[in-house]
Amino acid sequence: MFFASDNAGPVHPKVMEALAKANQGFAPGYGADTAMDRVRARLREIFEAPEAAVHLVTTGTAANSLALASLTAPYETIFCSPVAHIHEDECNAPEFFSDGAKLTLVPGGDKMTPEALRSTIAAQGSGIVHHAQRGPVSITQVTERGSVHSLDELQALTAVARDFGLKVHMDGARFTNALVTLGCAPAEMTWKSGIDVLSFGGTKNGLMGVEAVIFFDPEKSWEFELRRKRGAHLLSKHRYLSAQMEAYLADDLWLEMAARANANCARLAGGLRGTEAELLNDPQANIIFAALPRRVHERLKEAGAMYYLQDGPLEDPDGEDMLGCRLVCDWSISEALIDQFVDLAKG
Amino acid sequence: MFFASDNAGPVHPKVMEALAKANQGFAPGYGADTAMDRVRARLREIFEAPEAAVHLVTTGTAANSLALASLTAPYETIFCSPVAHIHEDECNAPEFFSDGAKLTLVPGGDKMTPEALRSTIAAQGSGIVHHAQRGPVSITQVTERGSVHSLDELQALTAVARDFGLKVHMDGARFTNALVTLGCAPAEMTWKSGIDVLSFGGTKNGLMGVEAVIFFDPEKSWEFELRRKRGAHLLSKHRYLSAQMEAYLADDLWLEMAARANANCARLAGGLRGTEAELLNDPQANIIFAALPRRVHERLKEAGAMYYLQDGPLEDPDGEDMLGCRLVCDWSISEALIDQFVDLAKG
Amino acid sequence: MFFASDNAGPVHPKVMEALAKANQGFAPGYGADTAMDRVRARLREIFEAPEAAVHLVTTGTAANSLALASLTAPYETIFCSPVAHIHEDECNAPEFFSDGAKLTLVPGGDKMTPEALRSTIAAQGSGIVHHAQRGPVSITQVTERGSVHSLDELQALTAVARDFGLKVHMDGARFTNALVTLGCAPAEMTWKSGIDVLSFGGTKNGLMGVEAVIFFDPEKSWEFELRRKRGAHLLSKHRYLSAQMEAYLADDLWLEMAARANANCARLAGGLRGTEAELLNDPQANIIFAALPRRVHERLKEAGAMYYLQDGPLEDPDGEDMLGCRLVCDWSISEALIDQFVDLAKG
Amino acid sequence: MFFASDNAGPVHPKVMEALAKANQGFAPGYGADTAMDRVRARLREIFEAPEAAVHLVTTGTAANSLALASLTAPYETIFCSPVAHIHEDECNAPEFFSDGAKLTLVPGGDKMTPEALRSTIAAQGSGIVHHAQRGPVSITQVTERGSVHSLDELQALTAVARDFGLKVHMDGARFTNALVTLGCAPAEMTWKSGIDVLSFGGTKNGLMGVEAVIFFDPEKSWEFELRRKRGAHLLSKHRYLSAQMEAYLADDLWLEMAARANANCARLAGGLRGTEAELLNDPQANIIFAALPRRVHERLKEAGAMYYLQDGPLEDPDGEDMLGCRLVCDWSISEALIDQFVDLAKG
Repeated sequence: MFFASDNAGPVHPKVMEALAKANQGFAPGYGADTAMDRVRARLREIFEAPEAAVHLVTTGTAANSLALASLTAPYETIFCSPVAHIHEDECNAPEFFSDGAKLTLVPGGDKMTPEALRSTIAAQGSGIVHHAQRGPVSITQVTERGSVHSLDELQALTAVARDFGLKVHMDGARFTNALVTLGCAPAEMTWKSGIDVLSFGGTKNGLMGVEAVIFFDPEKSWEFELRRKRGAHLLSKHRYLSAQMEAYLADDLWLEMAARANANCARLAGGLRGTEAELLNDPQANIIFAALPRRVHERLKEAGAMYYLQDGPLEDPDGEDMLGCRLVCDWSISEALIDQFVDLAKG
Repeated sequence: MFFASDNAGPVHPKVMEALAKANQGFAPGYGADTAMDRVRARLREIFEAPEAAVHLVTTGTAANSLALASLTAPYETIFCSPVAHIHEDECNAPEFFSDGAKLTLVPGGDKMTPEALRSTIAAQGSGIVHHAQRGPVSITQVTERGSVHSLDELQALTAVARDFGLKVHMDGARFTNALVTLGCAPAEMTWKSGIDVLSFGGTKNGLMGVEAVIFFDPEKSWEFELRRKRGAHLLSKHRYLSAQMEAYLADDLWLEMAARANANCARLAGGLRGTEAELLNDPQANIIFAALPRRVHERLKEAGAMYYLQDGPLEDPDGEDMLGCRLVCDWSISEALIDQFVDLAKG
Repeated sequence: MFFASDNAGPVHPKVMEALAKANQGFAPGYGADTAMDRVRARLREIFEAPEAAVHLVTTGTAANSLALASLTAPYETIFCSPVAHIHEDECNAPEFFSDGAKLTLVPGGDKMTPEALRSTIAAQGSGIVHHAQRGPVSITQVTERGSVHSLDELQALTAVARDFGLKVHMDGARFTNALVTLGCAPAEMTWKSGIDVLSFGGTKNGLMGVEAVIFFDPEKSWEFELRRKRGAHLLSKHRYLSAQMEAYLADDLWLEMAARANANCARLAGGLRGTEAELLNDPQANIIFAALPRRVHERLKEAGAMYYLQDGPLEDPDGEDMLGCRLVCDWSISEALIDQFVDLAKG
Repeated sequence: MFFASDNAGPVHPKVMEALAKANQGFAPGYGADTAMDRVRARLREIFEAPEAAVHLVTTGTAANSLALASLTAPYETIFCSPVAHIHEDECNAPEFFSDGAKLTLVPGGDKMTPEALRSTIAAQGSGIVHHAQRGPVSITQVTERGSVHSLDELQALTAVARDFGLKVHMDGARFTNALVTLGCAPAEMTWKSGIDVLSFGGTKNGLMGVEAVIFFDPEKSWEFELRRKRGAHLLSKHRYLSAQMEAYLADDLWLEMAARANANCARLAGGLRGTEAELLNDPQANIIFAALPRRVHERLKEAGAMYYLQDGPLEDPDGEDMLGCRLVCDWSISEALIDQFVDLAKG
């Protein structure tokens, strides 16, 4: 019963097969492998973006930080949600890769509102030498709180950025989970909605450790490649990244895994609704926030369930009786385990 | 006939098996997997260093840059060979990770001499605020030119560093190839010879993309972990790194592969000695530099041999008749292909 | 009628005399001048800190950024007020000098409250590799909104920092204005209240461009010197900085100028109270925030008064009728000009 | 008898007068002073460059580092002489301001030769992601060894840079001393000879601490301003920099002072030629390198002469009998003191 994260499950067997198949003889390194050509072509096709620049890295933090570094001068600031992964969970990597740029948090919840984004950008007085200059906007889709921006919401945010002449990055560590929820085309959720650069996640959706960075305008592609190498993120045996991504994109495996993760989450949410659990969010992809009685947590933990508490340790004698937690479902968790969790939650 | 690099061959089947075996269910991420505990214990055992800090990353450039960043203040300079990988082949990654430190090149060849190292350090006037301050020494074993430092040579270099109170890093991208050549214990080639931090390579010796950084004094271990995360080099699905390294260290596989690579190189060198080829180095591990007549190169290239020329393009009409090249042997290349190469060289 | 800033007035005549006097013959450069020895001794005496390290730079941004860089690792975050100069007015200099550290804004007004500081630090989960680690706290005295922290307030903030083992920096660009307000000893407002490093401003209080950085614990002194040189902030003809600071500290000139600036401010505030102006802060040093009717602003601007509006441009046809502004008094502005301003405000 | 450096002498009385004159009332800060407008216009006139961007900073290291940072991406390398100030005397400031770029030393002496520059640039394989990419060339005029590049020499170097599409920076800390030597127009020694950006020194030639950075193509002007502020090098009371520079440029004072310094140097060199001293360079501006017998050094030091030895300490019992030294003449040193030095050298 592992609900701690979607980055702890196994790699999909088809991806493992692809790795085994790629493991033949010699292949040119550093991204010059022929599999990478196929990956590039396939992603361009999927995104209806025949000019897009496509590069692979091994971590979401690398994808985000390198993508943002290509868009951000060191005297600029990146606008993002206060709960963005780039702010909360990357140990200053975006600051590092951008050579010391700032992150400006747009007040509000996990989704920035266009109004808050507009007033925050407006208040950041670009053109005056004393202030950090306005840099790109970064939007997380799925958000860290499990919400999915609608196309209208995305377009409203990117329109604000466009009004100020700013570029837009999408942190799509869970891109496919959101895509499945919206049921739209990848192009619609990205460049057709004003996204300039995408971190296209694979690791949280069944890969071993591969993320693509997609520049819909390829102008910054070579700069990205240099920053990737300088960041020590260019793998010599690159074919093993390409092979994973190729298998991921083949036969809709990426969509299938994300759909399964979302369905797992819906099953879990549905089950919990019949218990003492109080759902704290409307789970739109594969993440649930819920409050459960302390004794239920104790029972679950005892039974081996793994997940993060949000409201302090289970052992805190002065704590509230209801404790919040985060439950993330990946593609691999079985319905049986979900049901077992729900049964335990029912008590 | 692929001799371009030892980072383009396949992963050893036993490593692939280990990956498949690791691909079961959920595992805690970010280095908290139990396989990492075993890897740490095994490396401490191999290196007779029960306190050593051990961390894994995916590239040699990451291992070198992060290890050096932990030893180097941004106003310091790193002493290294003019042909060191950290200077020539990492696109300013050491400068980036150390937040702008300098590299000072010790005049001479691929191996620094103790005399040149001493005079270079002495000339770098530490204690005076105008100059870059003295930072660590970095030694490459095997060197980029295919030489192996003897234990005496290593100790002479580290003694110089110690005289100035400086730390010593070893870039061991081909550590095991050197170890096999010297036939000594890993501890002898490292901390017993004055090495403080080791980049322990796996990628060039049969892994998919795993290097260990070993601090014989664990004091900087936590700082390293923070720098690794900030550098976006902490993998969530870390178990797949651990699994590779575990398989690598099991049953002397690492030693076996390096021995094979070195033997392949010796076979190639021996074969070339009976041809028009002029050997330009004394190949002590798995790298040969040789000059061959232009027409021999043409014949080899036509037959599909892959390797780098050192002395300009094959097509240069004004070029010398003898052209230098680099030939690297990995563990996987077959004796048949080596012999075929030699036969072609014989002409 | 110049109330735009206290960094636009003239240098005190005694300081100009000191510069002229210093302009004799040759003097060792880079801080080795004998005047610097006297400055160091005098500041140690004034601050009752015989071991303190004292260094001079030319700008407040340099003082703050270099002081903080000496306290902050690049994977850490600095805690400060959302209106702190280091956040709002230094174009990412603190991020630059700290090699990419983050600034975490403590929610609230210009003065951080101990409660908000505590909960902000507590929420920044140090010890977990994904998050920015906790770094120093920076307190601005006088705040950017014209308030002065009492000793109790300072001690309550530094006690919180101490509870978490964090260092405390004071941005004292207007240090002396605050000191005069509190009427306490410099030691009381600094190290006796838990301040570790002080940016001791001179430029806003009658100098040409000199700030001292004072480390009450000299451990980081040499690192600071290296960072200062690396930051290109070590002046060769350093004697002209020392001469200014020496004159500043002689015969209580620093206290006299700050007292005059504060008195000027009190006179202006008193005068404005008898007009339509609405005071928006309780001016405790030399800065007033006030709202004035649009037509009064027009009259003042027409008469040549110089100051910054806070609430949008004077010409905005849809703007409010009352517009906020900031009025800063320096030591040099005459009572006659203050009274003239008040008369115009009366209308 | 101070010959240690030309940055230790007094400020010219006319400059002090200008400072006193500037010290009236209030002036807009941060470079918006009217004196700066006059400085900009005058420098454009002097350099026959009506579009040039002109900015002032307080140190030569700031001028060089900020100028180079505007030309250099962090994954690039700057080509310079092995004895360049930016390499030897700036404690990694160029690396810092360029966010971690490298410096590549062109083998040879203080003056780079076009051949060595060309082969060094050619060997730095731009376009390959593993290597530092080619960045700007930096030329020092006067060199750190006291030589002056002829216009032909400058043009030969900049032609090489141009062949590779690289920009050229001139470190002109002693620009005017070189200009006086060549007797040419400022435009000829700069943009007409292929220089893109100039550090135009004032501090070593009679100012208190002012250098101009002149971009002959103003495209990077705003970026420079942001980098200057981010580097904490934008002075609030900027008028005191402008006033110095204005006085410097008025009535050919800058040329007069440099001519005097050069003449002082020629007098000293001429005098030394009649002694046991052995001149080690052909002093073309205001710097002499000479070897003197140990006992002569002792006599000079005893008489209070100040200068740097090049060949180890005077007290070294095993040292050579002839010891090299550097003698720098500024505009202010009297002929009497020069003659006294020569008399002592004669001994």
